[in-house]
Amino acid sequence: MPVMTTVSIAQAIRERDKAALTSALGALSGFEIAELMANRIEEDQAFIFQALPPALAAETFEYLSLRSQKKVLHALSTKALADILEAMAPDDRTALLQELPDAIVDEYLKLLPGQERSLAITLLGYPKDSVGRLMTPDYLAVKMNWTVERVLQHIRAYGHDSETINVIYVVDDHDRLIDDINIKDLLFVPPAYTVSQITDRKFVALSVNDKAEKAILLFKEYDRVALPVVDEQGTLRGIVTVDDILRLASEKNTANVQRIGGTEALDEPYMQTPFLHLMKKRARWLILLFLGEMFTATAMGFFEGEIAKAVVLALFLPLIISSGGNAGSQSSTLIIRALALGELKIGDWFRILRREISSGLFLGCVLGVIGFARVTIWSSVSSIYGAHWLLIAITILLALIGVVFWGSTAGAMLPLILKRYGVDPAVASAPLVATLVDVTGIVIYFLIALVVLRGTLL
Amino acid sequence: MPVMTTVSIAQAIRERDKAALTSALGALSGFEIAELMANRIEEDQAFIFQALPPALAAETFEYLSLRSQKKVLHALSTKALADILEAMAPDDRTALLQELPDAIVDEYLKLLPGQERSLAITLLGYPKDSVGRLMTPDYLAVKMNWTVERVLQHIRAYGHDSETINVIYVVDDHDRLIDDINIKDLLFVPPAYTVSQITDRKFVALSVNDKAEKAILLFKEYDRVALPVVDEQGTLRGIVTVDDILRLASEKNTANVQRIGGTEALDEPYMQTPFLHLMKKRARWLILLFLGEMFTATAMGFFEGEIAKAVVLALFLPLIISSGGNAGSQSSTLIIRALALGELKIGDWFRILRREISSGLFLGCVLGVIGFARVTIWSSVSSIYGAHWLLIAITILLALIGVVFWGSTAGAMLPLILKRYGVDPAVASAPLVATLVDVTGIVIYFLIALVVLRGTLL
Repeated sequence: MPVMTTVSIAQAIRERDKAALTSALGALSGFEIAELMANRIEEDQAFIFQALPPALAAETFEYLSLRSQKKVLHALSTKALADILEAMAPDDRTALLQELPDAIVDEYLKLLPGQERSLAITLLGYPKDSVGRLMTPDYLAVKMNWTVERVLQHIRAYGHDSETINVIYVVDDHDRLIDDINIKDLLFVPPAYTVSQITDRKFVALSVNDKAEKAILLFKEYDRVALPVVDEQGTLRGIVTVDDILRLASEKNTANVQRIGGTEALDEPYMQTPFLHLMKKRARWLILLFLGEMFTATAMGFFEGEIAKAVVLALFLPLIISSGGNAGSQSSTLIIRALALGELKIGDWFRILRREISSGLFLGCVLGVIGFARVTIWSSVSSIYGAHWLLIAITILLALIGVVFWGSTAGAMLPLILKRYGVDPAVASAPLVATLVDVTGIVIYFLIALVVLRGTLL
Repeated sequence: MPVMTTVSIAQAIRERDKAALTSALGALSGFEIAELMANRIEEDQAFIFQALPPALAAETFEYLSLRSQKKVLHALSTKALADILEAMAPDDRTALLQELPDAIVDEYLKLLPGQERSLAITLLGYPKDSVGRLMTPDYLAVKMNWTVERVLQHIRAYGHDSETINVIYVVDDHDRLIDDINIKDLLFVPPAYTVSQITDRKFVALSVNDKAEKAILLFKEYDRVALPVVDEQGTLRGIVTVDDILRLASEKNTANVQRIGGTEALDEPYMQTPFLHLMKKRARWLILLFLGEMFTATAMGFFEGEIAKAVVLALFLPLIISSGGNAGSQSSTLIIRALALGELKIGDWFRILRREISSGLFLGCVLGVIGFARVTIWSSVSSIYGAHWLLIAITILLALIGVVFWGSTAGAMLPLILKRYGVDPAVASAPLVATLVDVTGIVIYFLIALVVLRGTLL
């Protein structure tokens, strides 16, 4: 964007010069205008938005964050609001409406003309996070007996309203999907050919009730620009396009990364999330983890006598429990990701368990040996671990094997158990697993110490 | 896939009946065949692959994991190898070759005919992880003075080899990019129109040296099926298609999730990664974290005397240091993700620091008050914390504020510092931040205890 334009836009906003702003914004794309609006106060956002011609307004609206969308809608006149809602693509409208409170949705639905309203109601009727909520009914459908010529005419007549013309769908008289044809195939054959001559009746379709994740997987597998969506009867209901899938995949990934890092997923960029909202999202998790971690104090309480007798045990406590937590974070993260990508299923639990048992023992031995070496070497140069250094070294070795083994298996099983009970496995974040492993790690450590050090230090 | 087919395929493989296998596989897509190969031993994989007709073999090959690709290549005859390499799309070929050792790449390049070879060498010449490595030169380019009729003829003649015909590129006589036109625009105008009548000279392009991440961001922002790639002179060099971007985004996200969970990114599915390979990836991180965490034992050593005098301090140690670690994991994850999405830049460090200082103090107070309440309430029902319970409660309160504050700010700054020095910020995984915060958390906790408890317990 040239500097001149930015300056004149800024000036037009400051001086509330609507005509100048309208003409200056005409040179920008919806995305650029949305970027421009993002860093401005609410009044400016509303002013900019109202200066846009309807088509550009609808395009810009789709790039605004959900929070900005709500604010802009709030500031619009009923008439302008109705225009925007009607101009929005049905899938983008569903995405917006599903985030609003029911009372407002009802109010907004009343603003839509009859056909658009019943369409919006139908789309909102599909389960949350289903393909039905993602799809748009703006596609091109043709019949088997049409000629290629007629199909091209049909594209010219109705293609403007379609989300994509790269794929055309072939349906029967009951709107049941028979095939999809690529526009490429139409251009390579004589116009007198009929559709039936270029179809192969092989197609990949989503179902309205499929989970959104399934759509992401199918798009990755089949390299498609768009996929058709059918209902239980095989009737074509809409299409999902790859641009929506790319954005959805990115949102889901952000949410996953944030949850694995131990925070609730933010709906908005870090800097745009209001402070108290951010605190609420972060505090909920931190408090939950804190309450879980409180059991460490309880567990430690049981071994207070042992600590008093052998303070040296306390010195290695953070090292040992954190090793268990780290091993657990690793395995839970690997399993969560593999579940999300469809590489693993709940039914694989036994194979996973077997693998993590070996992994845990192997990794535990590796860390155990390093820990053993550390105590041994330090004992040879200082007397910090006293006369019983060898027994302490053995305690450390065995405790590390036990804790890392427990962390790996528990960390791997937790996401599977969560999924089994219908909870999103990504809840098993690194900090949550670490917390669970900390408490049991303390018990494992002190029990091993009780056995090894009995009669000497304890 | 019907059961019958699976049975007969399995049988044909077992009996090494190549003709039967070839005919049975003909009904499947490349993706389905790749799925079928994934769970089989190496000899079966090679046998299946050799039974495929060349076109289907090239399609299947693109869906194989990198490990399977290497194995299959290894098992092929030189002739078959040359056919596959030549049939591969240039971008997929680059993706494969860049993972192979140089000696093998040289050998493979010799198998390609002259033009394909120099193309492959050019593409491999672009920096690793750049757009140049992602692009394919199979696009359609037209001139300004061409009629729409001529463009459509051009599409019919050359469209088969193009990755996409949804977007056509307009170039000048020096192959410099002037515009992109959607196939839609061609179908909506009379055939006698010239290209210059439908161009708006507005386009979005990538540069060959752009980072792959930039391509992902641009695709998300502009909802495109394909984006053109130009060099420094503005010459059109290739295109990147959205299907490759979706797959790349998913791979990058998997790597990020795994790193935030504290493990090196796996190149392959969890179950397909060989055990020792998995152990190497996991052990490296665990050992690194373990070595870092060893400083906790050192730090604890300094306060051995204090622990001996007031064992009660040890009881709360895991609770306090893990709270700092959790707060740190949260902020590092939020910042890493925001950096990856381009929401934040290094230059924003001061705004981030300010935000995390307030966040850390706020969250520290919340946890501190809960910790204080816990000690107070337990003291009223038991005598576990002795006569000085109030001083202990104050120590816990202040230590939590200090540790959570430190964790939040350090966790947020670490990814920025890493990025500043050219290291991938995702290295600041939840476990790494927790480890760093653990060591300092111990020091903060005991120093506060020394001040608050001086003259009483210490």
